[in-house]
Amino acid sequence: MKKVVLAYSGGLDTSYCLKYLKNELGYEVHTLLINTGGFTLQELSDIEKRAYELGSVQHTNLDIIETYYQKAIKYLVFGNVLKNNTYPLSVSAERVFQALESIKYAKKTGANAIAHGSTGAGNDQIRFDLIFQTIAPEIEIITPIRDLKLTRQQEVAYLQQNGIDYTWEKAQYSINKGIWGASVGGKETLTSNEPLPEEAYPSPLQKTTPEKVTLHFEKGELIGLNDHFDKPTVNITKLEELASAFAIGRDIHVGDTIIGIKGRVGFEAAAPLIIIKAHHLLEKHVLGKWQQYWKEQLGNWYGMLFHEGQYLDPVMRNIETFLEDTQKTVTGKVTVTLKPCHFSLDGIESAHDLMNTKFGQYGEINNAWTADDAKGFIKIMGNAQSIYAQVNDETYD
Amino acid sequence: MKKVVLAYSGGLDTSYCLKYLKNELGYEVHTLLINTGGFTLQELSDIEKRAYELGSVQHTNLDIIETYYQKAIKYLVFGNVLKNNTYPLSVSAERVFQALESIKYAKKTGANAIAHGSTGAGNDQIRFDLIFQTIAPEIEIITPIRDLKLTRQQEVAYLQQNGIDYTWEKAQYSINKGIWGASVGGKETLTSNEPLPEEAYPSPLQKTTPEKVTLHFEKGELIGLNDHFDKPTVNITKLEELASAFAIGRDIHVGDTIIGIKGRVGFEAAAPLIIIKAHHLLEKHVLGKWQQYWKEQLGNWYGMLFHEGQYLDPVMRNIETFLEDTQKTVTGKVTVTLKPCHFSLDGIESAHDLMNTKFGQYGEINNAWTADDAKGFIKIMGNAQSIYAQVNDETYD
Amino acid sequence: MKKVVLAYSGGLDTSYCLKYLKNELGYEVHTLLINTGGFTLQELSDIEKRAYELGSVQHTNLDIIETYYQKAIKYLVFGNVLKNNTYPLSVSAERVFQALESIKYAKKTGANAIAHGSTGAGNDQIRFDLIFQTIAPEIEIITPIRDLKLTRQQEVAYLQQNGIDYTWEKAQYSINKGIWGASVGGKETLTSNEPLPEEAYPSPLQKTTPEKVTLHFEKGELIGLNDHFDKPTVNITKLEELASAFAIGRDIHVGDTIIGIKGRVGFEAAAPLIIIKAHHLLEKHVLGKWQQYWKEQLGNWYGMLFHEGQYLDPVMRNIETFLEDTQKTVTGKVTVTLKPCHFSLDGIESAHDLMNTKFGQYGEINNAWTADDAKGFIKIMGNAQSIYAQVNDETYD
Amino acid sequence: MKKVVLAYSGGLDTSYCLKYLKNELGYEVHTLLINTGGFTLQELSDIEKRAYELGSVQHTNLDIIETYYQKAIKYLVFGNVLKNNTYPLSVSAERVFQALESIKYAKKTGANAIAHGSTGAGNDQIRFDLIFQTIAPEIEIITPIRDLKLTRQQEVAYLQQNGIDYTWEKAQYSINKGIWGASVGGKETLTSNEPLPEEAYPSPLQKTTPEKVTLHFEKGELIGLNDHFDKPTVNITKLEELASAFAIGRDIHVGDTIIGIKGRVGFEAAAPLIIIKAHHLLEKHVLGKWQQYWKEQLGNWYGMLFHEGQYLDPVMRNIETFLEDTQKTVTGKVTVTLKPCHFSLDGIESAHDLMNTKFGQYGEINNAWTADDAKGFIKIMGNAQSIYAQVNDETYD
Repeated sequence: MKKVVLAYSGGLDTSYCLKYLKNELGYEVHTLLINTGGFTLQELSDIEKRAYELGSVQHTNLDIIETYYQKAIKYLVFGNVLKNNTYPLSVSAERVFQALESIKYAKKTGANAIAHGSTGAGNDQIRFDLIFQTIAPEIEIITPIRDLKLTRQQEVAYLQQNGIDYTWEKAQYSINKGIWGASVGGKETLTSNEPLPEEAYPSPLQKTTPEKVTLHFEKGELIGLNDHFDKPTVNITKLEELASAFAIGRDIHVGDTIIGIKGRVGFEAAAPLIIIKAHHLLEKHVLGKWQQYWKEQLGNWYGMLFHEGQYLDPVMRNIETFLEDTQKTVTGKVTVTLKPCHFSLDGIESAHDLMNTKFGQYGEINNAWTADDAKGFIKIMGNAQSIYAQVNDETYD
Repeated sequence: MKKVVLAYSGGLDTSYCLKYLKNELGYEVHTLLINTGGFTLQELSDIEKRAYELGSVQHTNLDIIETYYQKAIKYLVFGNVLKNNTYPLSVSAERVFQALESIKYAKKTGANAIAHGSTGAGNDQIRFDLIFQTIAPEIEIITPIRDLKLTRQQEVAYLQQNGIDYTWEKAQYSINKGIWGASVGGKETLTSNEPLPEEAYPSPLQKTTPEKVTLHFEKGELIGLNDHFDKPTVNITKLEELASAFAIGRDIHVGDTIIGIKGRVGFEAAAPLIIIKAHHLLEKHVLGKWQQYWKEQLGNWYGMLFHEGQYLDPVMRNIETFLEDTQKTVTGKVTVTLKPCHFSLDGIESAHDLMNTKFGQYGEINNAWTADDAKGFIKIMGNAQSIYAQVNDETYD
Repeated sequence: MKKVVLAYSGGLDTSYCLKYLKNELGYEVHTLLINTGGFTLQELSDIEKRAYELGSVQHTNLDIIETYYQKAIKYLVFGNVLKNNTYPLSVSAERVFQALESIKYAKKTGANAIAHGSTGAGNDQIRFDLIFQTIAPEIEIITPIRDLKLTRQQEVAYLQQNGIDYTWEKAQYSINKGIWGASVGGKETLTSNEPLPEEAYPSPLQKTTPEKVTLHFEKGELIGLNDHFDKPTVNITKLEELASAFAIGRDIHVGDTIIGIKGRVGFEAAAPLIIIKAHHLLEKHVLGKWQQYWKEQLGNWYGMLFHEGQYLDPVMRNIETFLEDTQKTVTGKVTVTLKPCHFSLDGIESAHDLMNTKFGQYGEINNAWTADDAKGFIKIMGNAQSIYAQVNDETYD
Repeated sequence: MKKVVLAYSGGLDTSYCLKYLKNELGYEVHTLLINTGGFTLQELSDIEKRAYELGSVQHTNLDIIETYYQKAIKYLVFGNVLKNNTYPLSVSAERVFQALESIKYAKKTGANAIAHGSTGAGNDQIRFDLIFQTIAPEIEIITPIRDLKLTRQQEVAYLQQNGIDYTWEKAQYSINKGIWGASVGGKETLTSNEPLPEEAYPSPLQKTTPEKVTLHFEKGELIGLNDHFDKPTVNITKLEELASAFAIGRDIHVGDTIIGIKGRVGFEAAAPLIIIKAHHLLEKHVLGKWQQYWKEQLGNWYGMLFHEGQYLDPVMRNIETFLEDTQKTVTGKVTVTLKPCHFSLDGIESAHDLMNTKFGQYGEINNAWTADDAKGFIKIMGNAQSIYAQVNDETYD
């Protein structure tokens, strides 16, 4: 009997897929949930139960948080990756790692096919298929939702006909959650002009009195929080708890999708935004001008390819190596003040801080060089512009 | 008698310069204040009075706000220029235009020399000298503060000896204000770890109830506010009034100075930040992916050279032409919600909006193409990665 | 009766298409040859004759050389565009313009469909289809060769069955010629290791005694040759005649195709290479450092998108505007020596030459500044590196 | 007695410095020649002899070829570095390493000062001083030629007065030679329009019959030549011997100097040019599109900073790490044909070659995907442009 691995989330679409793969296509269906940090134990248990009820011969919940951190989040922090200056890739990065781990699982279990529930008008189908076909071209990809273009009603009806009669209430806002933030979709995000209402976001505002929090970085990684040191994944989760009580990190990402249309998606990502901004501030103190310049170039490119599912492009590994190499001196602590719905960066302390009164104070009296040094510097620095002006009789009116 | 034009602000440093140029160097001193939007009429009148008291033979207050907008601010908006993702060049752009207009004034009035009060450890000396020496290499540059390295006490004593006995109280925070924002320096900005206290910023928090404001853009320029249409400079000033009541737009810029040391400076720039973020959001809807990519590259470079005083580099004019050319479709309105100490972008409306349900809804059912189209797209899009994987026996473990 | 416009070259593939569209699909076939400078009058007449013999109801030879120059070649020169540092886009740019003019012609003549003879494994199909579907989504695209995957034998047999019995000798090397160079394909270009033999290239070596030729540029355009001034297209053609006698400009382009596989194609493009290298040399003398830097960035990107058929991406128009703006001072003459199979650049003369002994001679005694100026310049230029070294205790071993 | 280390070449300028440092400044002078591959044993011995005659208390000839290769040339090849698409940094890279090794030597020998013979109008002074002041700010830098601005006549006269009466014939062309090529300066290079005559170049044309040579690369390094395997430095030297007999690799570099004026310098660098072009061709076959794109960006930047003496900028180490990481698959052999005054690249063989008929032949019949796949690909690839055209009513006239 042919075996298929189905990326299963417990929702209507993938529940439909499960039944369809089993009943219509005759597959032995193995369901797989890849957990990147967005599920409670109760949710995992519920999904597993449902999978078996729907006919999965084997359901697996795979926790990949550490792998995801080591191979992705770490570099997203090194690169200060915010797509379009806004979005920390909360869902896109997670989807890529779900694809990677799903196809490895399918190979390992000797599956003939792999299935996912993406539609034909989104980015996720590309993230899944690109990685599947690269890593295991021999495994067939099955995508019932994309192929059949069914409505929710049709899916519910089919499941009912097959004896499954759950209440598939459509949440007003679809939320997708992982360790690196949650995405939020709703009727407003299908327009260009409407913001999401406050209640659409997962974390309500609970605190209004500002709190300070200290982030400890070592070689670019978040190794501690408020003088407690732990694994970065633990620190991220703790910071998320602290900061989401302030309803920090909400915004809407507007971008060019891989398929050429524009897309808009809300997100809430308190910890990712705070970490990236704090990390970036630390870098402004400890890195040279051109290190920052090229980090920004390569970090943005890395984010773009990652977002577009091209994680396996060989240049991605080269960029990771570059980014890691720049982090040697990115060690120190950053103090952040959490406030209702926003945060501010107080400052940093680092043994590698290049801002040091020993070498002169900006705008103050120059001690490390003379006025004549400065004049000579400016004179020669201006040679090229001055020659250009004279040769071309520029009048600058 | 030799004539010098002194860029005069009414403060201790340039007051010292005035006396020094007249008494020690024997110049006929013409004082000049270039107003980029940061002075009240009362302040201008006080400075003029003081200039004459100190011995200026001719004082001029020059309002260059419109020129400054047309030749600088406009492009800073087109390019969404935020130095190091933070700073709208509030002071740096203004200083460049003060330099440009000062040297033109000096040429026009037949001055032999031009003087400014910058120290030898800041960026301003470079912005002034670079532009002076390029536009008028025949005019001598005199910089008493940089050359003599005097303390405040020494300056005060010298002025007293020369019959000037003002109270030169040193403000705890030095504030530099123009239409494109105010910079704030103080003892905290000489450290790496301390934030500026709230009272250091010029605009106290006055409003706490959120307010919506609509920004109207035409070809990238802010042509209206809340359905009232006026000159961009007027709209900027009005928006600043509205938004500064919310204490919006405060932050600290940390950067590499032109002279190689790191510098830190506070700023408050409510209108610039709101305009740039709103403009950027509109662009995300109306520009193509690669237009946005290259605008970011060139906008950042433009901001860097501008900040470093290299406004006269010929590439700057080329970049301005590029940026302007990208603004043809950047027309529409953006709604922003002002909140205490921060703001959020609600959304946009534009006839050029490329996000249009007519062409497909992101993540929904694909109507403009088939599932097979999508599969063909992904298959061929993945060719290069797939070939690379096979040729190099990649295992992706 | 449904009307189709067929891009017709007179070769076997498009001759097959003509018969197939008429006999099998029942179209009224209008044939169109877009001439970008690669056909003699005799060839054009022969192709027209053949078109009618095969059943075209209307054949048109369209000369688009001037349009092609004004909208493409001009910018390829401004941008010094050599794909992968090698290839002047001889065929790719031409194909894009054939697509543009074909679809305009189809719209104008009220055609229901447009057909081309490209296969499914090349770049040309993309250049054609992308432009067709953007400019006229209502016109159907028909591609018999891509769809039917016929062998030459099958095509010849079909034509014979339909009464067409030409001798379709397959040339050993397929050559595609236009004003901006010729491409050469053959069995060697399907390998990675074999060069094309000399006889594969269209222009045999006829001259061995070096000759000097002077290129006159005005704002980046080739306005004259050896003191004779004429339209750029005429100058290009004349230079090609002069230089191809030296068998100059042969090479092989290796690149990433749009469909993800690597491709290799020979080319001969004497005039394009000489013009680009001469233009680039002139720019080294008259443009600033950062103008050259950004021109290279944008020129390369322009070439890449152009090569990949994305000529209609809106960023392309912005880049053209940028490139044109940089050419204001690119006026002067360049002397080139033609030699057997290569050429060398002798030097330039220009009123905008920034290399001028008036401002100092490189490496000689400094007259425009003092030794102390130079020392001050270097001291301050080195501040950042020096601080970095001290803060981080660099030992540089 | 104060000790100075003088970078000594045996020429008039540094001979003057030697006497001047000893007699006028009272230093114990230690002379040092850093050999980067441009000196014969006889020359080294002559220089040593002269140094002692002039009063050096200790002369040292330091061979740094292997260090220079490992820390510089290797990366220049990885990055395909040709400044302004022309110049392999023959002199600039060498000078930086002479500076590095000189200052290390000075520190080791406990010198109080270090001296070099550069003028104040060249790049070399900056390369020396920048590195000296960063690595050993405590050691004084002495530059008699820059400070005193003497003519040759004055230098000769001074030496004669001090009992040194050599014949200081000024060569018509000053040649500076190292393993990575020779620079050539002469009266023509001070103009913009005159080429250097053939006799100015060090290697006369000796061979006219084409010869093939095979270059073997392993991870980007030249590990063999014509099936003989040896150290890269040996292979470079051998290739130079082979290729210089064909007078290959001559050109003139025109560029923006660090001090803002334009400079022009001839060079002859047969081996560097052949190695870089062969290496680049191999990369076109084995690297992905975006690997090549970013290598070019970073390689060019690396070359620019290197050329400008900013080798110690921390971003340089990050770029080296990036470049090295891209070389994992750059293994294979490249065949080159040497011809009089030029060369051509025949092709490559590599186990990592991504051009492989297994995955489809460019422009031929598509076997790895269907016509429908291609159509779906193009349809979706064109979405963005198509939407833009419709939203903005583009007519493309």
